[in-house]
Amino acid sequence: MIVSIVGVGLIGGSIALSLKEKGVTDHIIGVDNNTTHLQKAIELQIIDEAASLQDAFDRSDLLILAIPVDGLLNILPTLLDKATKQVLMDVGSTKEKILQLVAGHPNRGRFVAAHPMAGTEYSGPEAAIRNLFTQKTMVLCDVKNSDDDALEMVEDIVDKLQMKLVYMNAEEHDLHTAYVSHISHITSFALALTVLEKEKEKGRIFELASGGFESTVRLAKSSPDMWVPIFKHNRHNVLDVLDEHIHQLQQMRDLLEEEDYDAFYKLIQRSNKIKRILK
Amino acid sequence: MIVSIVGVGLIGGSIALSLKEKGVTDHIIGVDNNTTHLQKAIELQIIDEAASLQDAFDRSDLLILAIPVDGLLNILPTLLDKATKQVLMDVGSTKEKILQLVAGHPNRGRFVAAHPMAGTEYSGPEAAIRNLFTQKTMVLCDVKNSDDDALEMVEDIVDKLQMKLVYMNAEEHDLHTAYVSHISHITSFALALTVLEKEKEKGRIFELASGGFESTVRLAKSSPDMWVPIFKHNRHNVLDVLDEHIHQLQQMRDLLEEEDYDAFYKLIQRSNKIKRILK
Repeated sequence: MIVSIVGVGLIGGSIALSLKEKGVTDHIIGVDNNTTHLQKAIELQIIDEAASLQDAFDRSDLLILAIPVDGLLNILPTLLDKATKQVLMDVGSTKEKILQLVAGHPNRGRFVAAHPMAGTEYSGPEAAIRNLFTQKTMVLCDVKNSDDDALEMVEDIVDKLQMKLVYMNAEEHDLHTAYVSHISHITSFALALTVLEKEKEKGRIFELASGGFESTVRLAKSSPDMWVPIFKHNRHNVLDVLDEHIHQLQQMRDLLEEEDYDAFYKLIQRSNKIKRILK
Repeated sequence: MIVSIVGVGLIGGSIALSLKEKGVTDHIIGVDNNTTHLQKAIELQIIDEAASLQDAFDRSDLLILAIPVDGLLNILPTLLDKATKQVLMDVGSTKEKILQLVAGHPNRGRFVAAHPMAGTEYSGPEAAIRNLFTQKTMVLCDVKNSDDDALEMVEDIVDKLQMKLVYMNAEEHDLHTAYVSHISHITSFALALTVLEKEKEKGRIFELASGGFESTVRLAKSSPDMWVPIFKHNRHNVLDVLDEHIHQLQQMRDLLEEEDYDAFYKLIQRSNKIKRILK
């Protein structure tokens, strides 16, 4: 089968590498507004050829849309208008808005809404990694609205990529990702700003930074082109989790201010329960 | 030379392993209130024998005090009272309080205040790691108040452990660590609490957690026994950085509330400057 990757960045590029390696396809067409990315993707043998979206669409069995979620809103309805045999699959980090947009579209069944729970803080085709998805979770949303053959094709790919499969509705997905992905990015951005701000005053502030700091702040390297649309689409949930997080920080702050170290100790002890979740 | 490690946990244990490996000593005495830890440390060949603090003190050339910072406040003055030839070195995460406490002590010169900028979220002798300190930074504080021979002994160890050496005064140290270490722990604790709280309501919330979440929350596994005394000792600086961090989060929250995505984009772009600092 012929696969097109629309958006040959970190995620699109990594999928392309894996699809080739697992023998899902032997021909991948790349589509990207950024011609430097396209050339790089050919150079790195991530894609076999570059084409226009129209041309790629006409010749593909499967199109994987790996562009920021606002771009997806722009192109998905138009692509669906013409999709009778092709399968369209996205990999976006938010799902409610996009699924609302195409709800009731006559070709809605050709679309499978997917979100691989994997990534890094880097972007572009150079950031693509073989096996980025191995043993990671793929979420498929509202699959009851996808055609059987389209769903089967995507499930088969999930299987070949050796991913764990989770089904969810879009609402549930957006709430969950706000809590275990989107908020982590916001705290990292804010932490980076906090320390960069202090650096202006105290030049040597980063000299003592070690693994713990790096770990909590590394997501602050993430691209605003990808993340602003995510926060925009998932604004309601992100505001909720952000309010809760600020509340938790404020609570710790107040206990420290009041020097109530017993209560502070208990909060840390309670947060230690995260050991149950993390390896 | 004979070295005693007081507190055979993650840091004390890791130093012991390195000192042996680098040939600094061939006999290490372990001291710990926790007898299970002592037995485990012998079993893991981290220490050669266990002894009481008094006995260890009498027989050692160097004592490395690797206990929580509140415990250090309790034992350091008494140890200094008797220290005429021994060198005492700590590895604590805060420095102002301890150095104020022993300022003007007749044997102050026998003490070298040190802080290795390395660690993990685990604790106890099982968590000790060979080479934990290689290529990491060791901060020595207010060294002008240490005797020349004491300082030389510690500097020699820093060199043998292949660590980078940074000199700072205690005030500077405590401010810097608040910004690049202590705050990272607080944000992790608060983030863990935020999501654990949500889990009560939405059971499957952790199902989609991936590398980004793990990275920002892993420090929440850290021990309250170690961290509450640090926050207590560095309360003033931690409150400052916490206020600044809450302010940054609030700013991002307000921009999202107002849907000012241009300003939000610029904030993320500014936070991306952290790339300059992190590898």
